[in-house]
Amino acid sequence: MPSFKVQNPHFEADVRKSFSGQSFMTTIGAELSCISAGAVEISLPFRDDLLQHHGYLHGAVVAAVVDTACGYSALTLMPPESTVLTVEYKINFMSPARGSAIVARGQVVKPGRNLTVCSGEAVTIAGGTEKAVAVLTATMVRVSGGPRRPPPIQSPMENP
Amino acid sequence: MPSFKVQNPHFEADVRKSFSGQSFMTTIGAELSCISAGAVEISLPFRDDLLQHHGYLHGAVVAAVVDTACGYSALTLMPPESTVLTVEYKINFMSPARGSAIVARGQVVKPGRNLTVCSGEAVTIAGGTEKAVAVLTATMVRVSGGPRRPPPIQSPMENP
Amino acid sequence: MPSFKVQNPHFEADVRKSFSGQSFMTTIGAELSCISAGAVEISLPFRDDLLQHHGYLHGAVVAAVVDTACGYSALTLMPPESTVLTVEYKINFMSPARGSAIVARGQVVKPGRNLTVCSGEAVTIAGGTEKAVAVLTATMVRVSGGPRRPPPIQSPMENP
Amino acid sequence: MPSFKVQNPHFEADVRKSFSGQSFMTTIGAELSCISAGAVEISLPFRDDLLQHHGYLHGAVVAAVVDTACGYSALTLMPPESTVLTVEYKINFMSPARGSAIVARGQVVKPGRNLTVCSGEAVTIAGGTEKAVAVLTATMVRVSGGPRRPPPIQSPMENP
Repeated sequence: MPSFKVQNPHFEADVRKSFSGQSFMTTIGAELSCISAGAVEISLPFRDDLLQHHGYLHGAVVAAVVDTACGYSALTLMPPESTVLTVEYKINFMSPARGSAIVARGQVVKPGRNLTVCSGEAVTIAGGTEKAVAVLTATMVRVSGGPRRPPPIQSPMENP
Repeated sequence: MPSFKVQNPHFEADVRKSFSGQSFMTTIGAELSCISAGAVEISLPFRDDLLQHHGYLHGAVVAAVVDTACGYSALTLMPPESTVLTVEYKINFMSPARGSAIVARGQVVKPGRNLTVCSGEAVTIAGGTEKAVAVLTATMVRVSGGPRRPPPIQSPMENP
Repeated sequence: MPSFKVQNPHFEADVRKSFSGQSFMTTIGAELSCISAGAVEISLPFRDDLLQHHGYLHGAVVAAVVDTACGYSALTLMPPESTVLTVEYKINFMSPARGSAIVARGQVVKPGRNLTVCSGEAVTIAGGTEKAVAVLTATMVRVSGGPRRPPPIQSPMENP
Repeated sequence: MPSFKVQNPHFEADVRKSFSGQSFMTTIGAELSCISAGAVEISLPFRDDLLQHHGYLHGAVVAAVVDTACGYSALTLMPPESTVLTVEYKINFMSPARGSAIVARGQVVKPGRNLTVCSGEAVTIAGGTEKAVAVLTATMVRVSGGPRRPPPIQSPMENP
């Protein structure tokens, strides 16, 4: 992984604070398991209320944690008082998400002043072996103003 | 919208049955609001436990209902005893999802024997005016075997 | 199609000028066939030197003209002295591109100050009937400075 | 990179034969520079007739060689008498393609009986340093029948 320039020495605390403000992450039981400059990992134990019609973890839950891991990986490299929004992402589902937990990893591929490209993956782990569940590529946009700012009244399209 | 050939006269009942088997859809409060040949609509009232860090509806929830609407739009055109899995999708977020409810629409762009291309959108409705929140393009794959089949032990990549 | 606010009264001339500066469009024989506010159409006759391994028009050529139509559809709604770059796009190929010509259409889905979301399609026309070949969704970024500006030395990621 | 099971001992010759049948690859001057099981590299020298409106290598040419590298990476792992078509891809452009040549790399992320997920990148090389230009994720579909088969009369959507 490349090394990146860190602009916000408090990026880990800011990521944790922002994450804790996402009620949906609490709802599905997602937890931040690793935060470093340009990379974030989120873990999610499987639960019976998060499944799709074949009994696997719902793809939307997989996408949720990978997208979120990517977004926060981008935030780690942004200046203080930034927040991040997803402009777009693309996800390929490669295997059913079965087992007891999923690990989602996001990392920055190309940081930018406003736009950051991230790559993410979701894996299940069983018996020490990882199985790839999904890969995701995302474009993130920086929104200046910091985590305590009230919700913007403009869209990500109007705001970068 | 083009007219499509229907192969399963019970597609509406099959979509409803499959949808009711998705515990995650129940968890987030999503409801099937319209089912026709090649098109499905899902509605979701906003809730405090489904938000992201700015207080908007979480993008993952938006993606969840649009992806699901697309998947079921594909299922309506498949033969009886089929189920559907998402191969991949791409979503662009255009405006924050604010208001009281979101409507997700999926429709078939190109049906195929195994692969179906779908287009979806999410809108919020306020005062009779729709506001576009997101657009999504997805590739769906047919899995033969029907909704009562036990979970396949192979991935979507191994199964088409 | 929605109506959009035009900021550049000379958008048609600016699109034509920019298009004529793309040597690759000349190389493949693409022609601007329609320009309106928020929508651009490009036509391309098939040629023996633009094929893939099955003898169809190469997907890259299809993508080239749809992406370009989308980019210029975004440019029509930008302020004077803007140029446009593609941040990313996603394309689904639905049918082989066979026949004598392809028509690529791009239109703006969501204009923004910096980022614009566009939707595109490629069709072949035979006997008065259109056949869908591909659909594309793209994010475009505005670069200020106008068409006569020397090439920027920064990337689209650093420049918006 | 993971190790993959090879089903076609003549995959390199088959890739070269298919590539040489793509007139568009010849038109733009692309060359196969490396073929291994699950990975293919294509090189392309810059030329004045392959540029966009800022004077960079056209994004369509970048996408063309990365998509093609991905498709052939998938083909290396398919059974004899297969050909490959792109179902869809998504590309993010990260830096302008400037310099004297571009290198496009495709590799298999998840092989499957019919569908294969691939990841690709394009880089420019100057002074021994690589600069990332674009990343791409693609879904490829196997078409049985081998490279000498006449063009199928059905679309990729009808054929997998």
